[in-house]
Amino acid sequence: MAETITKRADDYAQWYQDVIRAAKLAETSPVRGSMVLPPNGYELWENMQGALDRMFKATGHRNAYFPLFIPKSFLAREAEHVEGFAKECAVVTHYRLKEEDGDLIVDPDAELDEPLVVRPTSETIIWDTYSRWIQSWRDLPVLINQWANVVRWEMRTRLFLRTAEFLWQEGHTAHATEQEAVDETRQMLDVYATFAEEWMAMPVVRGVKTAAERFPGAVDTYCIEALMQDGKALQAGTSHFLGQNFARAFDCTFQNQDNEAEYVWATSWGVSTRLIGALIMTHGDDAGVIMPPKLAPVQVAIVPITRKNGDNEAVLDAAREMRDALLADGVRVVLDDRDQYRPGWKFAQYEVEGVPVRLAVGPRDVENGTAELARRDTGDKSPVPQRGIAGAVRTALHEVQQALYDRAAAFRREHTHVVDSYERFQEVMEAGGFALMHWDGTPETEARVKDEAKATIRCVPFPGQFPGVDTDEPGTDPVSGAPSAGRVVYARAY
Amino acid sequence: MAETITKRADDYAQWYQDVIRAAKLAETSPVRGSMVLPPNGYELWENMQGALDRMFKATGHRNAYFPLFIPKSFLAREAEHVEGFAKECAVVTHYRLKEEDGDLIVDPDAELDEPLVVRPTSETIIWDTYSRWIQSWRDLPVLINQWANVVRWEMRTRLFLRTAEFLWQEGHTAHATEQEAVDETRQMLDVYATFAEEWMAMPVVRGVKTAAERFPGAVDTYCIEALMQDGKALQAGTSHFLGQNFARAFDCTFQNQDNEAEYVWATSWGVSTRLIGALIMTHGDDAGVIMPPKLAPVQVAIVPITRKNGDNEAVLDAAREMRDALLADGVRVVLDDRDQYRPGWKFAQYEVEGVPVRLAVGPRDVENGTAELARRDTGDKSPVPQRGIAGAVRTALHEVQQALYDRAAAFRREHTHVVDSYERFQEVMEAGGFALMHWDGTPETEARVKDEAKATIRCVPFPGQFPGVDTDEPGTDPVSGAPSAGRVVYARAY
Repeated sequence: MAETITKRADDYAQWYQDVIRAAKLAETSPVRGSMVLPPNGYELWENMQGALDRMFKATGHRNAYFPLFIPKSFLAREAEHVEGFAKECAVVTHYRLKEEDGDLIVDPDAELDEPLVVRPTSETIIWDTYSRWIQSWRDLPVLINQWANVVRWEMRTRLFLRTAEFLWQEGHTAHATEQEAVDETRQMLDVYATFAEEWMAMPVVRGVKTAAERFPGAVDTYCIEALMQDGKALQAGTSHFLGQNFARAFDCTFQNQDNEAEYVWATSWGVSTRLIGALIMTHGDDAGVIMPPKLAPVQVAIVPITRKNGDNEAVLDAAREMRDALLADGVRVVLDDRDQYRPGWKFAQYEVEGVPVRLAVGPRDVENGTAELARRDTGDKSPVPQRGIAGAVRTALHEVQQALYDRAAAFRREHTHVVDSYERFQEVMEAGGFALMHWDGTPETEARVKDEAKATIRCVPFPGQFPGVDTDEPGTDPVSGAPSAGRVVYARAY
Repeated sequence: MAETITKRADDYAQWYQDVIRAAKLAETSPVRGSMVLPPNGYELWENMQGALDRMFKATGHRNAYFPLFIPKSFLAREAEHVEGFAKECAVVTHYRLKEEDGDLIVDPDAELDEPLVVRPTSETIIWDTYSRWIQSWRDLPVLINQWANVVRWEMRTRLFLRTAEFLWQEGHTAHATEQEAVDETRQMLDVYATFAEEWMAMPVVRGVKTAAERFPGAVDTYCIEALMQDGKALQAGTSHFLGQNFARAFDCTFQNQDNEAEYVWATSWGVSTRLIGALIMTHGDDAGVIMPPKLAPVQVAIVPITRKNGDNEAVLDAAREMRDALLADGVRVVLDDRDQYRPGWKFAQYEVEGVPVRLAVGPRDVENGTAELARRDTGDKSPVPQRGIAGAVRTALHEVQQALYDRAAAFRREHTHVVDSYERFQEVMEAGGFALMHWDGTPETEARVKDEAKATIRCVPFPGQFPGVDTDEPGTDPVSGAPSAGRVVYARAY
C-alpha cells in the first residue's frame, strides 16, 4: 500500500480519515456532506442490516416504506419536533429544470404549492399514516421498521459520524397503553445493546438521556453510549418513548375495549451508518481498520505465495481447496490469485482493510500440508493443517471476535473514573474517558459543565453497569454542591 | 372482508386499485405521487430484492451507495440525459426552514449556491465517481449495483406503475472494451428475464428498444416486456449499453495495456417496484391478488376452525404442530389463531392477499389426522395428512408456481397475433395483445402508428421467441408499404 496512515497518537482525527480512505469504506462526494459508500463500506452496512433485521423480526416487527418527502406543514405540527429539525433540512421547492440561453435553470413556473422537506426522520409522515390505519384496539400494536436514507443539513460533516445524508433504520410503533410503549422502548434498546456487544464487539453503557439531550418530541430518550479510543463518547443508538405527543399532533386515536376514544402511545428507535464510525474507532489500529469477524465483509483472505513465471499450480490448488472448504462451511472468504500484485502488497491491503484472518500458502506449506494463519488483531501467525481448515478458521474467527470485545472492554474500564471533585473531573475530561459523577439533576449544572469542560451528560445509566459502583446511591454534586440522586456518565462526545 | 373489489371485466383500472387497497400492498400518501408501502407490499419487494441480489452477486457484482442529491450541473453534462430527466425532477433549492409570524417558511437566507436534483437515476453522480476510481485497465471492470429510492416528477401517477418516488436497483458497470460492455448488458437482461419467469412466474419477451424508446443517453436499450391481463404491455426491466457517452461527459479514461488512454465503456440496468404492479396484473383475479409462491411474503396460512367458548385445544395443538413442521422446513407460514376474527373472515382475507396455500384444521380433521389444503389459484381443496405436512405443502407450492406461469404463458399465446394488415393491426390493438408486425425501421412509421393506434413498438425481439414465427424474416411494412427487415412487437402499453 502506497497510502500513508497517520499514527493515532499523532492525530486521531486524521488517522480516522486516513483509514477510511485506505480501507475504501467511504469517501466524500461533490455534494457537500454526502458520502459515497464503495463496496467495502456498503457491505459492512449490509451485514449490520442483516443482523439487526433478524433481531427486529424476531421481536415481531415488520418492514414497511414511507415517502421520502414530508409536507412542510407536517413538520410544524409537533412543536419540539419542528424546533429540532426545521433549521437543518433540505427543502424541495420546484419540480422541473429548463434550458434558458444554453443554461439549465430551475424553472420558475414549476414551483410547488407547498414545499417538501426531505425526511430528517419520519415520525410526522408515519403518524399521519397511522391516524388512518388505527381505529380500534384490534389494530394495535403496530410494530414497524423502515430502512431508509435521511437528510439533515449538517454544516460540519465527518464521514459516517455526521453527514448530510445517511442510511439508517427507524422503528415506529403504536400501542394501546403507556406501559406497553415503555416496554417496547426498553426492549429495542436491549436489541441495540446486544447488537453492539455481540456483533460489533463494542461494549456500551445503557441509560436515559437528560431533558437537554432528548430527541425533539420525545418524553424519554434511552441510549447506548460507547467509548472511542481517543476517550470521546459516541452515541451509538437511541430508543424514544414518545408518549402521546405525535398521536395528539396527528389526531391518532383508537377505541379501547370499553369503547372510549384514547390517544395512541408511541415509540421510535434508530441506528445509522454512524455505527461504522464507531466500529472503526473502537477497533482500528495504526495499520488500519479491524473488522469484527461476525460483521466482516471478508472474514478470511487466502493469499497464495506464487513466483512470477514459476510453476504455481500446486500452491494454487491448495489455496482453491481451502477456499472451497471454507465456502462450504459458510465462511466469507476470498482467494486473491491476482497476478498483477505481489503477496506482500496483498498482505498490506488486507491488513488495512481489517480482514480478521489471513491464510498464506506457499511451496513449503504444500509439502507440509499446512498453511500460515495470521490474526489481524494480534498479528500472531501460526501454521495450521490444510486438512480440516474450516475448523481452525472458525476457532480463530471466534477468538478474534472475543479478543476485540475484551480489549475494548478493558480500554473502557481503564478510562472510566469515579469522580468526586470538579477539578479531578476537568482533568479526566482533558485526558479523555467516562466520568461517573454526581449530578444535582438541574439543567443549570449540566449547561455549566458543558460550557466549562466541553463535556455532556451521556446518560443517566441503568443500575449495575459498573462493577463496584452503585450509580444510584445519593450524594453531592461537586459542581453545584447540591444534593444528587446518583451518578451520571459524563464525557466529551462525537 | 367488507371491501368490495370491482370485477376485472367491468373496469380493469378500478380492479387494480381495489386489489392493491384490499391486499394492503400500497396506498397513496399526502405527498402527491408518493406511495406508502405497508408491510404486505414491502415484504414482497424484500423477497424480490433477495432473489435479485443473489443473482447479481452470483454474476460478480457488489453493492455500493451513492448520494441522493445530484448537482444540477452534472445532469447538464450528457445532452440526451438532461433532455430526458430535467423536465420531471424534484429540485432542492434551500437547506433551512424558519418560523416567521407563527408560520414555518422556507428561509430565504438559506439558498443553495447550486440547486440539487433528487436523483431520477444515478449515471451522472456515479460516472463522476468512477472518473476518480478508474485509472488503469487493472481497475476494470467495475461491477456495481445500488438499491435506492429515486424520484421522477410524474404528473399522472398510478400505484407501483408510475409514482414520483419509487424503489429500485440500478447497476452501473465500467469496462475496458465495447464487447465486454455489450456482453454485460445482455447478461443482465438475461438475469431479469430469468427472475421474471422463474420467480414472478411471468413470461417476458426479450428484445431491443427502437431509438424513440431508448433510455436518454444510451446507445442501445434492451428490455423485457410482459403482457398484462387487459392486453396492455408492461416494460418490466431494462438494460442499457451506454457506449462511451457517460465516460466522455465525465472524462473517465483508463490506460490500456498498451499505455494508451481510452474512454471507458459503460452499462446500466434497473428494475423497480413497478414489478409489483406487473405481478398483480399478471396473476390477480376477481377475488384479489395471487402471489407466486417463490415470492409470497406468506406462503401458507393456517386457519384453525375454532368455536367461540368451545374447547379448541386439540385443534390449536394440531395447527401449531403443522406450523412448526413448516417453519422447520423453511416455509413462510403464519398460524392465524386470533380470537377476534371468525375463520370465514380469515379465509376471505388470505384470498384477497393472495396467499398461495391455505390450511384449515377443525375438530373432524383432528380425529382424522388430516387438514384441508386449499390452492389460491384454482380454489381446489383436498384433505392432506397432518403427518408429513411439509412434503404436501412443498408439492402444492411448486404446483401453484408452475400453474401460474403456465396460465400466464397461455394467455400471452392467445393474445399474440401475427399481423399483416394495418386494419387487422388496429383491431388487435383495440382488443388488446401483442401484434407481431413488419416494420420498415423508420421513426416516421413508428410515430404514425403511435398517433393513430396508440400503440408503440415494445421491442425488436431477439430471434426464436415465438414458436412458428421467424421474426427475422424480411417482408413488407403494411403501414408504409416499404420493405421490412423483420417483425417487431407492437402493443399499447403501461
